[in-house]
Amino acid sequence: MASNTTTVHVALSERSYDIEIGAGLLTEAGRFVVEQTGCSHAVVITDSNVESLHGQRVAECLEQAGTRVDMATVPAGESTKSASHIDQLWRLMLEFAADRKSVVVAVGGGVVGDLAGFIAATYGRGIRFVQIPTTLLAQVDSSVGGKVGINLPGAKNMVGAFWQPTSVLIDTDVLNTLPLREYRSGLAEVVKYGVILDPEFFSYLEANIDGLNNREPNVMRHIVARSCELKAQVVSADEREETGLRAVLNYGHTFCHAFEAETGYGTYLHGEAVAIGMLCASRLAESMGRIDAEVTRRQFKLLDALGLPLAVPDVDQDVLIGAMQKDKKTEHGKLRFVLPTRLGHVELVSGVPVELVRAALVSS
Amino acid sequence: MASNTTTVHVALSERSYDIEIGAGLLTEAGRFVVEQTGCSHAVVITDSNVESLHGQRVAECLEQAGTRVDMATVPAGESTKSASHIDQLWRLMLEFAADRKSVVVAVGGGVVGDLAGFIAATYGRGIRFVQIPTTLLAQVDSSVGGKVGINLPGAKNMVGAFWQPTSVLIDTDVLNTLPLREYRSGLAEVVKYGVILDPEFFSYLEANIDGLNNREPNVMRHIVARSCELKAQVVSADEREETGLRAVLNYGHTFCHAFEAETGYGTYLHGEAVAIGMLCASRLAESMGRIDAEVTRRQFKLLDALGLPLAVPDVDQDVLIGAMQKDKKTEHGKLRFVLPTRLGHVELVSGVPVELVRAALVSS
Repeated sequence: MASNTTTVHVALSERSYDIEIGAGLLTEAGRFVVEQTGCSHAVVITDSNVESLHGQRVAECLEQAGTRVDMATVPAGESTKSASHIDQLWRLMLEFAADRKSVVVAVGGGVVGDLAGFIAATYGRGIRFVQIPTTLLAQVDSSVGGKVGINLPGAKNMVGAFWQPTSVLIDTDVLNTLPLREYRSGLAEVVKYGVILDPEFFSYLEANIDGLNNREPNVMRHIVARSCELKAQVVSADEREETGLRAVLNYGHTFCHAFEAETGYGTYLHGEAVAIGMLCASRLAESMGRIDAEVTRRQFKLLDALGLPLAVPDVDQDVLIGAMQKDKKTEHGKLRFVLPTRLGHVELVSGVPVELVRAALVSS
Repeated sequence: MASNTTTVHVALSERSYDIEIGAGLLTEAGRFVVEQTGCSHAVVITDSNVESLHGQRVAECLEQAGTRVDMATVPAGESTKSASHIDQLWRLMLEFAADRKSVVVAVGGGVVGDLAGFIAATYGRGIRFVQIPTTLLAQVDSSVGGKVGINLPGAKNMVGAFWQPTSVLIDTDVLNTLPLREYRSGLAEVVKYGVILDPEFFSYLEANIDGLNNREPNVMRHIVARSCELKAQVVSADEREETGLRAVLNYGHTFCHAFEAETGYGTYLHGEAVAIGMLCASRLAESMGRIDAEVTRRQFKLLDALGLPLAVPDVDQDVLIGAMQKDKKTEHGKLRFVLPTRLGHVELVSGVPVELVRAALVSS
């Protein structure tokens, strides 16, 4: 890879893999996939938005590298993560005569990665796949961790697998074509990594507001690489979400899931709901005497400077609390939150009094 | 477990598990599942044939052991291993409020085990499952190895996973209710283990024809336990079918798959086609000078005494050979067979001349 490329290693014993991050890497996708996998057949899975922007380029690149290439384009949007689309893709794989040596190449955001990854996890009882995430959120979140799958009606990500990619290629140039709102939504997850794991990274973000807002290449490479590194550390310690360690990644997410569910999916982008959720969680931690007001204030200021929404949605508090009690990470209706103890450190806290949750839902 | 129980350990590092084998164990299923898993919610998956014979008993047993129990009954038959049935079962799991701590209990033959195992492999990104196989074939074959999944149109087992059970409970008494033809079909796979791995076990089978035909309890326990042990040794050495070691289990199966595909699935039971396929493979090995005629003769005599069909189906030879060249285990149309070198040992042989295959298709 070129010299301006950063490599992040995800350590998962025999399932370990590398993430290559740099500007303009998409043009090297063909060579990259063939070098990494030695495959003679690749199936590019992309969506109707990304196909013309990047999907076709990746497919052409792969052909030039000497691989037989097929392409499957699914409709853009969360509703594509369904059993019926998985069935269609399984049949397409068969039509393409994909076998155990074929490689699935996912080109798109989180939906494409989750769907393509689940195809790779199940077709032929599991084949290799390479992720080429094209949204900031997918680059910093779903490209690390191996969670793949689909939704059931009313139950997000209820069916799936832990299936690690063979490798991940991240071209930060693709962020330039990302709509502003979607880009900002990804930044919310970047901020989250600072809050939960790395105060220095948080300070770096505070010091680089302009670079972040202008999508400066060096800033892009650094924030994507550092986010992947931080998530990789957590995932390496708890690959299958069994020890509870991986729960730290859910900072802000109990609130976030309630906002998403009760405003109707689509009102908020995921990162927007995460931003509001982090501030709620931070206020909650304050009210429990776990942190001082400065920690909340710094998050507020940073998220605000990055153009993220900060106000709690106008939904009845009881409805939101009811949704939190039904969250799949909740046990028997007991409210449980990931809360900071200082900038760069969080803990899982059970049995939080409902009055404090209610108070945290009031934007300060 | 009772003193007349045999335990077979399947060594797969952190995915290791035990198989408990004995007469009348079904009545202990509830205690067994609760002891092994500590679950408070079990979903029994069974089929329309097995439900009234054994499925309901297992469900009652589980309830008596203090677990919340739900039951899903699928139509009996291979066509149930489809994407649409998987989708229905995923939705049922959600209706049952199954969560990551729920346990899937498969009560039935190979179809139920494959389907229920794939549900366990994917619901909630993977939950525990206990196998209670109720056919001889499922007891000696699909209860060891972790292969689960469904068919795509025209492609058997094309979608699935390797997902090991938490434990397996085998009640040999259930074999008494098995139709004769189905019972005999299972015996073909038992004979196979002797041929490929264990000449002493083959001799034991030769010496116990009456016990086998009369389904004597001690003989049943021994053949099931020894078959599971032998398969477990192979699977432990090659869990995900990556090193080629696991290929020995496909003795007779290249021929078998061609017979099944070209006579229409359902004409032969799987074990019947295996029996004929083993004799073809043995004749082929003979013609290549790999074994002497005695090895084929002993297999013929044993399979005959167990009431299995031995004559090659009346299908055009070119059609059969064409089917073998399309077999998913074939590489680029090259004919490849698992062939004996002596009783108890087989090898994978590539590039076998088509004239010899043709000759082996003539029943002697």
